[in-house]
Amino acid sequence: MSLKNIIVGQSGGPTAVINASLCGVIREGLSRKEDIGKIYGMIHGVEGFLEGRYMDLGEELGSRELELLRVTPAAYLGSCRFKLPEDMSSEIYPRMFAKFEEMDIGYFFYIGGNDSMDTVSKLSRYGKKAGSRIRFVGIPKTIDNDLVLTDHTPGFGSAARYVASAVREIVLDSSVYQQKSVTIIEVMGRHTGWLTASSVLARKYKGDNPALVYLPEHPFSMEGFERDVERELSRRRSVVVCVSEGIGDKEGRFICEYGQRELSSCLGREAVPGMDGGGEACLDNFGHKMLTGCGKVLERFVKERFGVKVRSVELNVGQRCCGTLASLTDVREAERAGQAAVSYALEGESGIMVAFIRKGNGDFYELEYSAVDVNQVCNQEKKVPVSWILKGGNDVGEEYAEYALPLIRGAVSLPMENGIPQYLYRKQIFPEDV
Amino acid sequence: MSLKNIIVGQSGGPTAVINASLCGVIREGLSRKEDIGKIYGMIHGVEGFLEGRYMDLGEELGSRELELLRVTPAAYLGSCRFKLPEDMSSEIYPRMFAKFEEMDIGYFFYIGGNDSMDTVSKLSRYGKKAGSRIRFVGIPKTIDNDLVLTDHTPGFGSAARYVASAVREIVLDSSVYQQKSVTIIEVMGRHTGWLTASSVLARKYKGDNPALVYLPEHPFSMEGFERDVERELSRRRSVVVCVSEGIGDKEGRFICEYGQRELSSCLGREAVPGMDGGGEACLDNFGHKMLTGCGKVLERFVKERFGVKVRSVELNVGQRCCGTLASLTDVREAERAGQAAVSYALEGESGIMVAFIRKGNGDFYELEYSAVDVNQVCNQEKKVPVSWILKGGNDVGEEYAEYALPLIRGAVSLPMENGIPQYLYRKQIFPEDV
Repeated sequence: MSLKNIIVGQSGGPTAVINASLCGVIREGLSRKEDIGKIYGMIHGVEGFLEGRYMDLGEELGSRELELLRVTPAAYLGSCRFKLPEDMSSEIYPRMFAKFEEMDIGYFFYIGGNDSMDTVSKLSRYGKKAGSRIRFVGIPKTIDNDLVLTDHTPGFGSAARYVASAVREIVLDSSVYQQKSVTIIEVMGRHTGWLTASSVLARKYKGDNPALVYLPEHPFSMEGFERDVERELSRRRSVVVCVSEGIGDKEGRFICEYGQRELSSCLGREAVPGMDGGGEACLDNFGHKMLTGCGKVLERFVKERFGVKVRSVELNVGQRCCGTLASLTDVREAERAGQAAVSYALEGESGIMVAFIRKGNGDFYELEYSAVDVNQVCNQEKKVPVSWILKGGNDVGEEYAEYALPLIRGAVSLPMENGIPQYLYRKQIFPEDV
Repeated sequence: MSLKNIIVGQSGGPTAVINASLCGVIREGLSRKEDIGKIYGMIHGVEGFLEGRYMDLGEELGSRELELLRVTPAAYLGSCRFKLPEDMSSEIYPRMFAKFEEMDIGYFFYIGGNDSMDTVSKLSRYGKKAGSRIRFVGIPKTIDNDLVLTDHTPGFGSAARYVASAVREIVLDSSVYQQKSVTIIEVMGRHTGWLTASSVLARKYKGDNPALVYLPEHPFSMEGFERDVERELSRRRSVVVCVSEGIGDKEGRFICEYGQRELSSCLGREAVPGMDGGGEACLDNFGHKMLTGCGKVLERFVKERFGVKVRSVELNVGQRCCGTLASLTDVREAERAGQAAVSYALEGESGIMVAFIRKGNGDFYELEYSAVDVNQVCNQEKKVPVSWILKGGNDVGEEYAEYALPLIRGAVSLPMENGIPQYLYRKQIFPEDV
């Protein structure tokens, strides 16, 4: 009997370490020559795979390329935001499984977040019903750190390190002038504040900036914000505020959706015309609101209310694609998660996600790997514990640093060319791919 | 006769290496014990100095602190945007010189850009007339690289390295999805495109993104932009565009000032309401327009005109305050510029700025230092040569890479604490300073 092959894909938003997990799958797959045949990669996830696009990774990538892949951000194989139909009688399922059979696939690995675990869940459930022997394993990835049943998620540590480092630099930058100023830093995070909370790691001493930190887990009020900023402006020249893009008021309205009318209402007078233009909210393929702009709304509010110098900074995609600030701990754990996925599949597991269990903390931080039921992971959301958020909702407590510090440790040594990171680029072998 | 003292200040916007120049002044000053007494630093430039705020740097900073200062971004001493009066009979001048005398100052160093060289020019001219023997020396600093009479300016190489690296990462990030998309990256640069042009260094192969690069040195037209984007969208899935914040049309109007009306006119139909809200332009203390937002204007235009996925990314203050991507070449040259300033002052020079002369290029790149007349530097602006900008104004030629590559080489080894850069913070010794 010939050896079964691997197919691996990446899905959802990029991170600094999603390729480290891919590297882990490939390396582990290559080391199990007695069990595994070829290692295929789907291009643009299940969406590209359904259109017939995949590549032979074992063929394409030598050990030098793998070393570079491990530290290259974004998604080497390309990604997708493709949701498999809820309806299990959809023709997509037999079509996909026919392709699996044609390619002699025995092991399916999907690296991604919530929505990708939904894909793993559906395929494994369909496969079980259809009597397929293919094993389906999810490898977690998200900068949001919002997956349940795992201590944390690959991608988060690097993003948190980027945010903490960038915030420290912006704090320095915003402190150089003598005049009073407010700097608002907008951090990624639709529904959870794990990443925004990492801005507290930027503090060098007690009382250091960022002075105020707001997470989506706590209802945001303009009145409270006004009081907080007023108090901080009376205490220090430069006030740095960090906010999650997804903060919302107690009615559940996103602050980024506030326009001229809401600003005027909060100010108790007409906002200056033309100060409108907060974020637009549109829906992505999964029906999530795509957010941008609460930093701008707050910038305008502060400018009108306090008349001080104010700037908003959106940390933007650097949070998820900056390889130069990747956390070595994160890169290593992401790679091992990929390796563990292959091991679990070979042991017969299917319908699972690789999860992290923390053993010890601080200098005694250690990680163990486990397999959890993917059906219990997908479409769930892990939030920052309310008890970690300080009264008033404008800061987080010591528990957070204890949790996050071990995850942002260590710097990655990146090969440079002409002063900038070399990174591994995929050859574009399909016309649709260019 | 007692030894004369040094006073040194920082002025204008922060950079990654303005503290390396400060470090150079202090180290050189300390090494000339036979010539120099104390080394004072003005807090918040001449503005804070006039209010009596300065510190004894030789006392405050040991060798460990100096090592950390050298790689700390922003401005350790604090900065200001204070323009000395044109009127040489202003009471400010005798007041300042009385302070100099009181503190037994013999050497005045000011690290900054155009406006700071204006300060050096005015003080040296006043001093000459007033019979003062104080020597006034400017040390160049600006991420904009727009100072004349010098091959390049400290601060530029690090900012260019940051931009090139961030653009490469955003290019990777924006390439992961299958759908057509346009990503617009807005780079700092009011009137000159030196920094925006560094985005071409991000290209890994011929034809790689960024596909389009627009500098303020070439008039920007929405019609040309529309044609360029249309052509690129027909060639590739992901189109990355880099623009200077200061691009303007041939009538001299900034694109960031375009509102609903101009967008509608460019589209030949009504732009969707609420799509307005391009940048606001306000004036800083020197009467410069403060710009923000041309990326947002172009984002809206592309979304309306082509209906593809579009995102704009403002690289923002990271360009000037990111220490983790500082260029080692830049740090070294900035420090040596500080040392050279002290040497020139001791040799009797005054009313000068330290300037760079390039000897050789590529692997044979070498730098010499010289002294140029500061009066010929201030209030001038060095632009990217028009011959380096490709026909159509949407890219730059090979000359740029030849010029810029030697300046972005080498990585700085930053001491880390808990995973993020340690950096040196100034003790806040004045109540106004907190």
